[in-house]
Amino acid sequence: MKLGSFIVKLVKQLGVKQVFGVPGDYNLRFLDFIEESKKVDWIGNCNELNASYSADGYARENGIGVLVTTHGVGELSAANGVAGSFAHNVSVLHIVGYPSSSIIDNDIPVHHTLGNYKKNNFLEAFNPICGATTILTELNYIEEINRVISNMLTTKKPAYLGIPTNLLDMEISEDIEDMIFRFKNSDDYRVEEVGNIISAKFNQSKKPMMLLGVNIARFGWRSVVTDVLRKTQLQFTTTLMGKSVISDKEIARSNYMGIYAADYSTDGVVAHMQESDCIISIGTVETDLNTGGFSEHDINYDNVITIRPQSVKIGKKVYTGISVDKLLEYMSENLDLKKDIYPRLGQKNIDKNTLKGKKLNQKDFWPIVANEIIKEDDIVVAEAGSALFGLLPQNLPAGIDFVSQILWASIGYTLPAAIGSAIAAPKRRVLLFIGDGSFQLTAQEVSLIAKYNLNVTIFLINNDGYTIERAIHGPNQPYNDIYMWDYLQFAKSLGIKNLMSIKRFDEFFDGIDKMREDGAKMIELFFEKLDYPPLLKQISDKLAAANQS
Amino acid sequence: MKLGSFIVKLVKQLGVKQVFGVPGDYNLRFLDFIEESKKVDWIGNCNELNASYSADGYARENGIGVLVTTHGVGELSAANGVAGSFAHNVSVLHIVGYPSSSIIDNDIPVHHTLGNYKKNNFLEAFNPICGATTILTELNYIEEINRVISNMLTTKKPAYLGIPTNLLDMEISEDIEDMIFRFKNSDDYRVEEVGNIISAKFNQSKKPMMLLGVNIARFGWRSVVTDVLRKTQLQFTTTLMGKSVISDKEIARSNYMGIYAADYSTDGVVAHMQESDCIISIGTVETDLNTGGFSEHDINYDNVITIRPQSVKIGKKVYTGISVDKLLEYMSENLDLKKDIYPRLGQKNIDKNTLKGKKLNQKDFWPIVANEIIKEDDIVVAEAGSALFGLLPQNLPAGIDFVSQILWASIGYTLPAAIGSAIAAPKRRVLLFIGDGSFQLTAQEVSLIAKYNLNVTIFLINNDGYTIERAIHGPNQPYNDIYMWDYLQFAKSLGIKNLMSIKRFDEFFDGIDKMREDGAKMIELFFEKLDYPPLLKQISDKLAAANQS
Repeated sequence: MKLGSFIVKLVKQLGVKQVFGVPGDYNLRFLDFIEESKKVDWIGNCNELNASYSADGYARENGIGVLVTTHGVGELSAANGVAGSFAHNVSVLHIVGYPSSSIIDNDIPVHHTLGNYKKNNFLEAFNPICGATTILTELNYIEEINRVISNMLTTKKPAYLGIPTNLLDMEISEDIEDMIFRFKNSDDYRVEEVGNIISAKFNQSKKPMMLLGVNIARFGWRSVVTDVLRKTQLQFTTTLMGKSVISDKEIARSNYMGIYAADYSTDGVVAHMQESDCIISIGTVETDLNTGGFSEHDINYDNVITIRPQSVKIGKKVYTGISVDKLLEYMSENLDLKKDIYPRLGQKNIDKNTLKGKKLNQKDFWPIVANEIIKEDDIVVAEAGSALFGLLPQNLPAGIDFVSQILWASIGYTLPAAIGSAIAAPKRRVLLFIGDGSFQLTAQEVSLIAKYNLNVTIFLINNDGYTIERAIHGPNQPYNDIYMWDYLQFAKSLGIKNLMSIKRFDEFFDGIDKMREDGAKMIELFFEKLDYPPLLKQISDKLAAANQS
Repeated sequence: MKLGSFIVKLVKQLGVKQVFGVPGDYNLRFLDFIEESKKVDWIGNCNELNASYSADGYARENGIGVLVTTHGVGELSAANGVAGSFAHNVSVLHIVGYPSSSIIDNDIPVHHTLGNYKKNNFLEAFNPICGATTILTELNYIEEINRVISNMLTTKKPAYLGIPTNLLDMEISEDIEDMIFRFKNSDDYRVEEVGNIISAKFNQSKKPMMLLGVNIARFGWRSVVTDVLRKTQLQFTTTLMGKSVISDKEIARSNYMGIYAADYSTDGVVAHMQESDCIISIGTVETDLNTGGFSEHDINYDNVITIRPQSVKIGKKVYTGISVDKLLEYMSENLDLKKDIYPRLGQKNIDKNTLKGKKLNQKDFWPIVANEIIKEDDIVVAEAGSALFGLLPQNLPAGIDFVSQILWASIGYTLPAAIGSAIAAPKRRVLLFIGDGSFQLTAQEVSLIAKYNLNVTIFLINNDGYTIERAIHGPNQPYNDIYMWDYLQFAKSLGIKNLMSIKRFDEFFDGIDKMREDGAKMIELFFEKLDYPPLLKQISDKLAAANQS
């Protein structure tokens, strides 16, 4: 078997069926192996940044995503997307086509190099934004492939695999074909000890609560956490990034209590958290946006148990050497039933009659989206702007996946990411909510939705500029303006046929049945320029203050 | 004066009137200072990669360009463009808005960071692709601003200036306002010695020739080299990258002999170079594409004098410590007249009648463009694909600027670069030649052409895919296909009103008057999928062989 075929086989073995990227002359030979294999499909994006976002969106659904670029020009264009995957623990394997070994070894100034060719120039750029990076040689390839893939599987961070084009045709031995990753599970010698401390504390507690974070999805703990919730019937809140992290519909419907993010929590949640005498926090991440701008709040930290990939913290004591999977299994067997401790979360009712005749506005719009547009099992992709901060406080239908970038917050991310989601989960409906400013960054990728007739509905929030920036600073400064496009004609020119334009709530209500249909479409929604969702205003005021500190 | 105002003043002092970028919350305060100043205009691109290309195109016309991005997400998206500026010695000052010093110093995991915040994460990515990089602090800002700007002015490489947002409002003293860059000229103690050796060799020679490279433009030697040519009346060839580097129309018209690039030279040039007993090579760069794929050729290197930014090589001996400006001045005073040594270059005649009724084809098309479309003083921007390799062999009108990326060869570069050219030189007509595959990477930036009604004509070569990749490898492989857009409707949706679609030569001839008019427009030209310009085929065969070596 040739190395090229082996790499494709490896990709397939990692559970990846589609890979994203852009052809370039140092990866063309690798693309031949993909074509030949018939096992993995090539999805050609319009550019590499978009490809990196698509691979990220794909990996969030599929566990792992693969991105293929060419040396220098291609890989550097993808750096922002790969860094976003790092920030959000999304496992993207970035395969970079390098010039031939003889060119690299002799530092020959070929095209797609800086002229002052140094073979590690670009690898160095990726070191801080990947879990592991390598350039293969004839001598190192066995252990290096093992090392970077194992690192990706353990840390969930992106990995960088540079392959000189001539090596792809090298014959490799059968032993290597059977190579097994030296993927090492976390130690687990303390599971019982720590499990017993947690059980004792929890079982004695009167008002326990669970706070769930996004790493439950990233580290593959969804089913074990759901088991704990099912066994204990415990009610739970999530962080902002943990939005909709529990995909079990029954549990999500009955046990979800809202979002805890200190000052940005949904109604009633802060009081519940303050009352609680045992908070089990799982897979949460501390960032400015996720934790309410690091706002102070009255939680008694002695009552908090924090379970993270590398450690468990109980009160002030930190334990390591624990397999989180096994600990959660142990907990599901040893924690007591704690049913209906807090009042159940009700569904908001919206009186549509009061909205008739009115123009669209942010405050009223998002609850309607939550109630009327989003359905169970949808994948909801929310751009870090009006869309994200409009949707976060809503009680969304159970069983959805919620895709966003609260930490990295790269505008333009969601359009290509939604494409990745749709390709990874072809049976689900993908709803993308994105503002016009963000849309312009990666807009050409609408082309891919049309090409594959993906089940993606684009809700384009047209409010004439960078609204999240206006909210933070300079609401009327010209630098926050963008040039007005004819967005529907734009989408049409790229092959989208189903188009709607909506300015008023009546038009919106009239169009709801059509919006809820399957299939590629774009719905343009007009809002006032300085109309912000309430949470966005609240958060951006805090960010503006931090910038001056 | 506040630091923010000082930076804007500095930008202005560097001769920059427009800066390119995308707003992001860590640079918004800096954008206020730009707005306030009324001295420098903000040009908001659709995304940061496009902005970096525009800043590069601007800098090629203007000497220096400025790019403004936000920390993490913004700057990384621009990495490919900045690396291209490095490869081509284009001076782009990359100003990056950083979070407040207190956030950086305390490693707080704010948004637009990796969570595991390390303040130099992204700076490290830019170290290999910039001449100098820095993050300002309250203590270092005087010497650091001096250091990175001086480096940029000397090396012509891009510079990276990270500014924590809170520092912008810091008052700085008047002394600093008057700060003079410690820009150090090259040493010049050997100008006379080396100048005399060159003069003796040249004046004795019977068949001298000059070979000119792109660094003549980058290092500001155009006028001194032109003086040498005027004084000696010497005939000259250029490398591929040096295409149209002499902008003096009289000299360009009478003394230009064609391109020397070994196997890819234009007709007759190799023989002249082989005959020559004294070749003066100025500002040339050795890369695979520029030198004819490193092809071997029969030049006697003992007769070659090579003048480069840091050194002069005469035969086998290398001299340093020379100011190239002064050396060229010395040469213009001491070299003898060497008029009409080689037969003058004739203009190709095209018989339009033979083309009537024919579909467009690459071989016949580019000579027509050279004769009928491009006019003196135009800026011609050629994408590294069919456009570049179609135009390079043509004898183009005198006085044009020729913008391309032969070394870095990042597809998609030229559309935003053409915008930069048009903004830097508003009185000149910009002609952009770009293929459909490349166009898709950065297509949304057409928006900026419409917004400012720039004098840019886009000639879109629609040949249904990545033609340069097809020529190198896999002509019929699906990965070289792209999704067909309605390009004219696309351009219209972004505000371009003047549109043409052309399939046959008669249509082309009929439309020529309209094409030659000033103003923003797009002309779509249809070619056969596997029709390559002859030079592209020749070069790509060699690249394919190198990939297998």
